[in-house]
Amino acid sequence: MATALQSLQQHLHQTRLLGSISSALYFDQNTVMPAAGADWRGEQLALLATQLHERQSSSAYADLVAAAEAELHPDDPEPRHRNLALLRLELERQRALDPALVAALAQAQSRGNAIWQDARQRNDFAAFAPALETLLALRTQQASQLQAAEPVPRSPWEVLAQPFEPDVSKAQLQDLFAPLRAELPDLLDRARRMAAAQGGAASPEHDLPEPAQEQLCTELLASWGYNADQCHRARSAHPFSCTLGPRDFRITTRVVRGQPLSAFLATAHEWGHSLYEQGLPRGDDHWFPWPLGEATSMSVHESQSLFWECRVARSRAFAQRWHPRFSAVLGGDPWGGEFGFWRAFNPLKPGLIRVEADELSYCLHIVLRYQLELDLLEGDLPVAEVPQQWNRQMQELLGLTPSNDREGCLQDIHWAEGLFGYFPSYALGHLISAQLAMAMEQALGPIETLLATAQESALQRWLSDHVWSWGRSLNAGELVQRVTGQPLHAEPFLAYLRGKLERLETGP
Amino acid sequence: MATALQSLQQHLHQTRLLGSISSALYFDQNTVMPAAGADWRGEQLALLATQLHERQSSSAYADLVAAAEAELHPDDPEPRHRNLALLRLELERQRALDPALVAALAQAQSRGNAIWQDARQRNDFAAFAPALETLLALRTQQASQLQAAEPVPRSPWEVLAQPFEPDVSKAQLQDLFAPLRAELPDLLDRARRMAAAQGGAASPEHDLPEPAQEQLCTELLASWGYNADQCHRARSAHPFSCTLGPRDFRITTRVVRGQPLSAFLATAHEWGHSLYEQGLPRGDDHWFPWPLGEATSMSVHESQSLFWECRVARSRAFAQRWHPRFSAVLGGDPWGGEFGFWRAFNPLKPGLIRVEADELSYCLHIVLRYQLELDLLEGDLPVAEVPQQWNRQMQELLGLTPSNDREGCLQDIHWAEGLFGYFPSYALGHLISAQLAMAMEQALGPIETLLATAQESALQRWLSDHVWSWGRSLNAGELVQRVTGQPLHAEPFLAYLRGKLERLETGP
Repeated sequence: MATALQSLQQHLHQTRLLGSISSALYFDQNTVMPAAGADWRGEQLALLATQLHERQSSSAYADLVAAAEAELHPDDPEPRHRNLALLRLELERQRALDPALVAALAQAQSRGNAIWQDARQRNDFAAFAPALETLLALRTQQASQLQAAEPVPRSPWEVLAQPFEPDVSKAQLQDLFAPLRAELPDLLDRARRMAAAQGGAASPEHDLPEPAQEQLCTELLASWGYNADQCHRARSAHPFSCTLGPRDFRITTRVVRGQPLSAFLATAHEWGHSLYEQGLPRGDDHWFPWPLGEATSMSVHESQSLFWECRVARSRAFAQRWHPRFSAVLGGDPWGGEFGFWRAFNPLKPGLIRVEADELSYCLHIVLRYQLELDLLEGDLPVAEVPQQWNRQMQELLGLTPSNDREGCLQDIHWAEGLFGYFPSYALGHLISAQLAMAMEQALGPIETLLATAQESALQRWLSDHVWSWGRSLNAGELVQRVTGQPLHAEPFLAYLRGKLERLETGP
Repeated sequence: MATALQSLQQHLHQTRLLGSISSALYFDQNTVMPAAGADWRGEQLALLATQLHERQSSSAYADLVAAAEAELHPDDPEPRHRNLALLRLELERQRALDPALVAALAQAQSRGNAIWQDARQRNDFAAFAPALETLLALRTQQASQLQAAEPVPRSPWEVLAQPFEPDVSKAQLQDLFAPLRAELPDLLDRARRMAAAQGGAASPEHDLPEPAQEQLCTELLASWGYNADQCHRARSAHPFSCTLGPRDFRITTRVVRGQPLSAFLATAHEWGHSLYEQGLPRGDDHWFPWPLGEATSMSVHESQSLFWECRVARSRAFAQRWHPRFSAVLGGDPWGGEFGFWRAFNPLKPGLIRVEADELSYCLHIVLRYQLELDLLEGDLPVAEVPQQWNRQMQELLGLTPSNDREGCLQDIHWAEGLFGYFPSYALGHLISAQLAMAMEQALGPIETLLATAQESALQRWLSDHVWSWGRSLNAGELVQRVTGQPLHAEPFLAYLRGKLERLETGP
């Protein structure tokens, strides 16, 4: 007879099957589905979402968890204890929610997205404001229902951030963001002065033909261990990475006109996400359906994509290695040598749009959004004042003022889908990447030196041993503490930025 | 409050959503999925199959059907009556089956496939024989369980053929196949003599580069109304067509080395399937989830693909139109003029392999398989004697003897998956296509004349009005009777073949 644990695993296995079917539909939708297929696809995904929710909150499932807990013995391996604890927490959260609220939220998110698409196009924040108010009200209500299930007292914003960043707290973010807020604007000023001094560092008038960019991306992936037996790369409007099964990994890229390095960097970024997924613990069948086999948080996921994009693909040594290849493919060198090529990979110039931001200003975009989320959810900021607040802080942090809300507070999709608590993970990803890189360098020597001799496989091995293989056994903070011997802090990231800026200032 | 009919429609709608999710996974699997994803994909598909079976046989569903029947009024529109009758029939069939038998069959089919793959590779019929015996025993048992649910008395073979070809009977096939059996071998002899007389009609030593073939296929589809807003074309190992939603149609093609016309003809064939699907009645939401919105049978489906492949793409007028284009793309004319080009599209030469067979011999391959199925299921042919019987009949019908079972009775996958009753639909497709074409010519004039002036849209309109828009309102036999004023018979097909052979004999 099956043990309670085996029955539970069987249930989780089927849940994972359904979840990955959704991922397969999502991949198809964003790579090849014809436009007219959208409505039907939406219905398919909604049906699967309903089934998933049912499987994760039904009393049958609750009984399975309870039976496995009853069977649990103090001497059982620690991972089994943690798996059950994570399942119990998630179950309590699911069951704390009023189904009517879940349905109302799903509808408000879908409406919010549609209204935002339109309002953004017409640059009309007032048209979007009521939808945002509804979403804030519903999510506040959700947070209040969820608070009862939280193992420790958490504020509404903290409750909403848990699914993306387990155990994140406002106090922690306050400590981490304060140094960024204090120093990044100064670094940005330095970068501005450098750009003025170096003069014509404007983007060169050249572009790489699509097949050439595709070819360079293929070569990049080949050199980083891409295995066509379990990976597939496709094209999509926005690059993404997703996992369709324990041995089925997909990434997508796109070629952007006038941005000859964009596809290359996006490929590095998405492959970083995929490497993490590929390296998650799945030694035996035990892991894949269980929580411990999952990525531990959004910030750690982002730290992995940012590592390969920023620490590797934007590094000086990497530019030196690839400069001849890019020049050969282009049949010329519009960058005027490898230093210019490296500089093209590191355009330190603040802009209004988050997704186009450089390494210096990116986190300031996040600090701004985080502050507004707190003011909206826990403070007394009225929705109508979001545009003024946005623009005021944008000026304060980045020295820029949007000329309209489309390039201001209407630029991101997150709030339109009710995603509050999500943005900070992006900034945490930068900090974690930097702190992990520091530990890696203590163990392996300078990354630049390893890259000069194409030893990316050594970096991968280190990440596999110290990050990927932990899965959800450690949360983001515990992982950083364990690997680096210190709590997560902002200094490694700031030190990295100072160093890069200095080398850019110094010149070739 | 929802009527019983509305509740039933809601149920069918969700069933269709699940079914089309399977199709989406199938499409992904056969176009882009990496090889290592196969096991997990198999589990996903099995899970969906289980859910589908449950939805189609549960007592909750039976109650919905019964309630809708109880609500039905004699004055209700005829389509509503027919929809419910078709659902009732299918439900009774599902419920007549012992679940243990369903599970045993699924397992035997999966095992049969695996054993066949191996046995075929090693050319070892004896290794496959026990699996075939098991499948025959289980399918015989299934037929006997299903017989109770049939509205008219049916033999075991007839029962098993119903899912592919509703209302097909052995008597009908006997009438249809006898003339083929009588005349096709003679026509094949004539073709052999013609080939000998014309001498060097051997396949020319040329090939078309892949991008050129892709380009020609794109042009073909563009000229036949391909709409990228609701269609997507991909590559796969074997060409297929599938429908992923009411407005989401996919087809695939492949380029075969050394067969410069293969991709072009396969595209015509698959697009023919897709046009039928695109033309099914979906005027309002009412149709898609209901039986009447479905294709009526395998043979009618095949008649549509064969119409576009054989009657259009292999026609003389079409060759005349496309000869300059192919020559331009190839940068030469290895066919020695448009007649040679047309002849290349119509290589009338019998071979051992069904899927490579020409129009003259294809149906004889089917006649042989049909006879063997009858002998196995209803006669006393022992499985061990299949190879001898196969080879004897192959010699009798086609004048050829396989040198081994791999190019003989082990060539097809159908029996390995327990698919008995399926093959005849292929041959019926040829007959239906010819008889419909005859009616079309009576209405529109010679197809060759229309093609000479690129009036394919007129052919599409006629097929849409007379075939596609019926859905399952008429079964295959009723459709042919209605459109052509005559029951389905073999003469139009034979007359078409005689005519083509004669024109090939006559020469340019």
